[in-house]
Amino acid sequence: MARIAFIGLGAMGAPMAANLVAAGEKVTGSDRAGGARERAAALGVPCAATAEEAGAGAEVVVTMLQSGEQTLDVWRRLLPRAATGALFIDCSTIDVESARHAHRIAEAALARAIDAPVSGGVAGARAASLTFMCGAEAETFWTAKPILEKMGARILHCGGPGLGQAAKLCNNLMLGVTMIATAEAFALADRIGLSAEALYEAAAVSSGQSWSLTSYCPVPGPVPASPANRDYAPGFLTVLMLKDLRLAETAAAQAGAVTPLCAAAAQLYALYAAQGGAEKDFSGVIEILRGKA
Amino acid sequence: MARIAFIGLGAMGAPMAANLVAAGEKVTGSDRAGGARERAAALGVPCAATAEEAGAGAEVVVTMLQSGEQTLDVWRRLLPRAATGALFIDCSTIDVESARHAHRIAEAALARAIDAPVSGGVAGARAASLTFMCGAEAETFWTAKPILEKMGARILHCGGPGLGQAAKLCNNLMLGVTMIATAEAFALADRIGLSAEALYEAAAVSSGQSWSLTSYCPVPGPVPASPANRDYAPGFLTVLMLKDLRLAETAAAQAGAVTPLCAAAAQLYALYAAQGGAEKDFSGVIEILRGKA
Amino acid sequence: MARIAFIGLGAMGAPMAANLVAAGEKVTGSDRAGGARERAAALGVPCAATAEEAGAGAEVVVTMLQSGEQTLDVWRRLLPRAATGALFIDCSTIDVESARHAHRIAEAALARAIDAPVSGGVAGARAASLTFMCGAEAETFWTAKPILEKMGARILHCGGPGLGQAAKLCNNLMLGVTMIATAEAFALADRIGLSAEALYEAAAVSSGQSWSLTSYCPVPGPVPASPANRDYAPGFLTVLMLKDLRLAETAAAQAGAVTPLCAAAAQLYALYAAQGGAEKDFSGVIEILRGKA
Amino acid sequence: MARIAFIGLGAMGAPMAANLVAAGEKVTGSDRAGGARERAAALGVPCAATAEEAGAGAEVVVTMLQSGEQTLDVWRRLLPRAATGALFIDCSTIDVESARHAHRIAEAALARAIDAPVSGGVAGARAASLTFMCGAEAETFWTAKPILEKMGARILHCGGPGLGQAAKLCNNLMLGVTMIATAEAFALADRIGLSAEALYEAAAVSSGQSWSLTSYCPVPGPVPASPANRDYAPGFLTVLMLKDLRLAETAAAQAGAVTPLCAAAAQLYALYAAQGGAEKDFSGVIEILRGKA
Repeated sequence: MARIAFIGLGAMGAPMAANLVAAGEKVTGSDRAGGARERAAALGVPCAATAEEAGAGAEVVVTMLQSGEQTLDVWRRLLPRAATGALFIDCSTIDVESARHAHRIAEAALARAIDAPVSGGVAGARAASLTFMCGAEAETFWTAKPILEKMGARILHCGGPGLGQAAKLCNNLMLGVTMIATAEAFALADRIGLSAEALYEAAAVSSGQSWSLTSYCPVPGPVPASPANRDYAPGFLTVLMLKDLRLAETAAAQAGAVTPLCAAAAQLYALYAAQGGAEKDFSGVIEILRGKA
Repeated sequence: MARIAFIGLGAMGAPMAANLVAAGEKVTGSDRAGGARERAAALGVPCAATAEEAGAGAEVVVTMLQSGEQTLDVWRRLLPRAATGALFIDCSTIDVESARHAHRIAEAALARAIDAPVSGGVAGARAASLTFMCGAEAETFWTAKPILEKMGARILHCGGPGLGQAAKLCNNLMLGVTMIATAEAFALADRIGLSAEALYEAAAVSSGQSWSLTSYCPVPGPVPASPANRDYAPGFLTVLMLKDLRLAETAAAQAGAVTPLCAAAAQLYALYAAQGGAEKDFSGVIEILRGKA
Repeated sequence: MARIAFIGLGAMGAPMAANLVAAGEKVTGSDRAGGARERAAALGVPCAATAEEAGAGAEVVVTMLQSGEQTLDVWRRLLPRAATGALFIDCSTIDVESARHAHRIAEAALARAIDAPVSGGVAGARAASLTFMCGAEAETFWTAKPILEKMGARILHCGGPGLGQAAKLCNNLMLGVTMIATAEAFALADRIGLSAEALYEAAAVSSGQSWSLTSYCPVPGPVPASPANRDYAPGFLTVLMLKDLRLAETAAAQAGAVTPLCAAAAQLYALYAAQGGAEKDFSGVIEILRGKA
Repeated sequence: MARIAFIGLGAMGAPMAANLVAAGEKVTGSDRAGGARERAAALGVPCAATAEEAGAGAEVVVTMLQSGEQTLDVWRRLLPRAATGALFIDCSTIDVESARHAHRIAEAALARAIDAPVSGGVAGARAASLTFMCGAEAETFWTAKPILEKMGARILHCGGPGLGQAAKLCNNLMLGVTMIATAEAFALADRIGLSAEALYEAAAVSSGQSWSLTSYCPVPGPVPASPANRDYAPGFLTVLMLKDLRLAETAAAQAGAVTPLCAAAAQLYALYAAQGGAEKDFSGVIEILRGKA
């Protein structure tokens, strides 16, 4: 049983911290927003007023925040306060550069670090069925794995520092583009008179298959659980998909990679956000193709 | 046992016709190219010198050609020669307008018609494991199904006249875009230092999954059977993917649909074709992202 | 003074025909729509009920229609009826293939042909200040020039058969893309707090200058005559710009050219059309960038 | 006569500083690269070994650097060393956020600040014919104007702090996109058989006109001074155009603007850079459209 500080108790962080508590860990949570602390407390997560208080003497620090800047800020403040040789786990989705920078400052403070962004959404956070994509030295990965297993079902070691973030961004690049391709196909089918059911039936067993089609279909009907069936209530927010595609673009620009469809997809999500879809599920991008948003 | 004329004995048509022969049908093949006739004959398909000769008195006419123009031309020539009430099956991938026009001229000649483009490639044609996406009246579909089952494993009724083609185009739109998204992700991963294996392992079980990733991965390694492992030897030619995306764009333009990523993907395949990839597998499009083609 | 049949008396054709009349030519107009004939008659253009009637014995036939199909149809019907060796002038904007086909059927009928699409819009048609981009043999060009000069200010010989259309499409490709680039710049400026006037003043004398900026500015203010000042009342309809970009794409596909920004621009005009901008001026495409359409 | 420190003596900075010297100003230059200092000295610019030395007691500090980070770094170091109330002029092209941040740190140090990026290239820097796009309070603008006039021909006040950079980015967004549109048109023309001369003659007086066409034509011939005539020797480097388009994209992302063609153009320049065009003139992007790079 480790003493764990969990910083960032939002829609994802709160149930993740609660799962650690439920698994018997000694967790102290914290969040700048008082409302978030109250909701986490209601889930059984003891909370401290400040990150510093939560992190004092912690053997493990988990961060679940909005940006590389926030992660670096919290790590800088807690590295001197946590236990010697503490394990810092960042579950936020942030840019690769910041992730690598976080590893470096942890190393300088003689702490161990792992970037471990997640896939699976709020439902996965609640069910402790998340996938963790991890970037760390092998030894650190094996140390972190038992803790992550209390919050997730699949713990993958993608490579060294930053490569968990890299895997997450590359995955979401594919997701963001493929979802629009799927939306285009269904919008076109509708105009030609091909039913959504018929297209689904044909493509689901053919070369057009994808998770976007068979697990998250952007039109109502074929996949009952997909947000399309509830007027694109999220799910995964358009603005968050847009953020991830921009992180991928930034990584590509820095690395000299060319990602034309990622860039085009980002623009379409930006257009959807500008036309009222910012807080809807990203699969609602099909609405702009249909001339209404 | 029906008397079947099979027009178009190319890389796909010849093995398809041979499977009909093997299943006991009385087939007469034909192709404008003498070489194609010879190769089909070597597979056991009796051939006639002209389409007219093959089609005289046929109860079933199967066409497997390159364009809507060719299909319409052959149907026009054979409709007056085939048996009364003959069944015309077009397995070519052509534009929706031409497919619907073909249905109309068949109807005017009191013949029955079905558009039945295929998915599965040359391997599927040989193994009689093709998927047929069919557009026809229900009665015609049920008449054609036992014949198609001798060439394929999955016979789908997508809707009325032309909707088999529509389903094929919508499927290939998703395939064409998703393949480039997958290529972008792997090219980016490579530049950041994330191995192809690690990205594959993470994305194959996550929201970035697609047939392009898990059945036809555009980099060598993760999927041993994919063309990436043999320097992008086809497989499915870049020029044919380009043709299909353009058919999708034409259908979209006629129907007033908006398909931005389809259009962007078509341009990237056109660029790959212009840079030397025309006769390579379409998954080789990753080469231009890497700065070499 | 030549006997001229003028087929197609729409918003462009009627004033063009009227200018020929005003210049002393003996013109007989025709249009399938009775209303168009009446409006042309009101401008002083004598009209016949049918194209055949107008074209009987004509020394010059001018067509100003909507598509290559329409031009070919009218030419086919009038070539046998016009005077021997008549001059056929097509001022429509159509695809290059059809234009070249029209030249061939004229040649077969021993007539002379010129493709002569125009630039300058309805205002230019009225003021006889159009630019004509001509494709024809040199001798035919010089024969047509004095007639075209009665409708336009600048008569350019772009090359052989079809190359007038080619020049028009290439011009409009540049126009269609550059207008969106200009719209993006002004929409971005607005969000950052840079005034339209300041951006105009800086770019009009810099490397960002274009006709789209300095003659047809897509925001109200800098160029008083531009449609932006009257809520994007046309001007040049979005659907017509979309048609021209698609003709350019078709020409590119047939010729093996790669035109990625043309394709992307076409999709944005299609989106604007789908969102209510079809009958507005094409410069109104800025509205979708702003999140309202 | 003011005491001026000029930091950044590269291809642009050195001749700009030399023009100040020639106009009688008391200039001390500096550059981290010794070679740059030597070349500037050869142009008559006295140089100091460090920026601190050059800036000590300076009444005016001019920076001409590569990035917002560099500008902020030099300003931070020189603000405490320059004369009280000194005027800081940043001629670099940098992101709007950094420019505004630079204004704030200058204000905090009781200095005056102006962002004044330039247009006109190395030729304009040498000839003192640059255009300066300025962002500053009115009083500061009028103070800086006489100094800028010694390096440029046109000094524009675009608005408050940061809006000089905003105008530059918006201008270059239009330039970067329009150049590719122009390249697409000429590449297409070439494939159809329309000569570059004929297209130039038609478009230069029509709605397709732009600075990219009539001052910097991307094919050899029509505009003798354009880089196309010397195998795309720069001119304006592809990597610098790419940098500017990315700055525009970053500004758009921060401001919630949508810039789809800017994003698409950036990808095409990135592709050209990846295929060997990084250090060529940006108008050479036409090479990838032609299938060779």
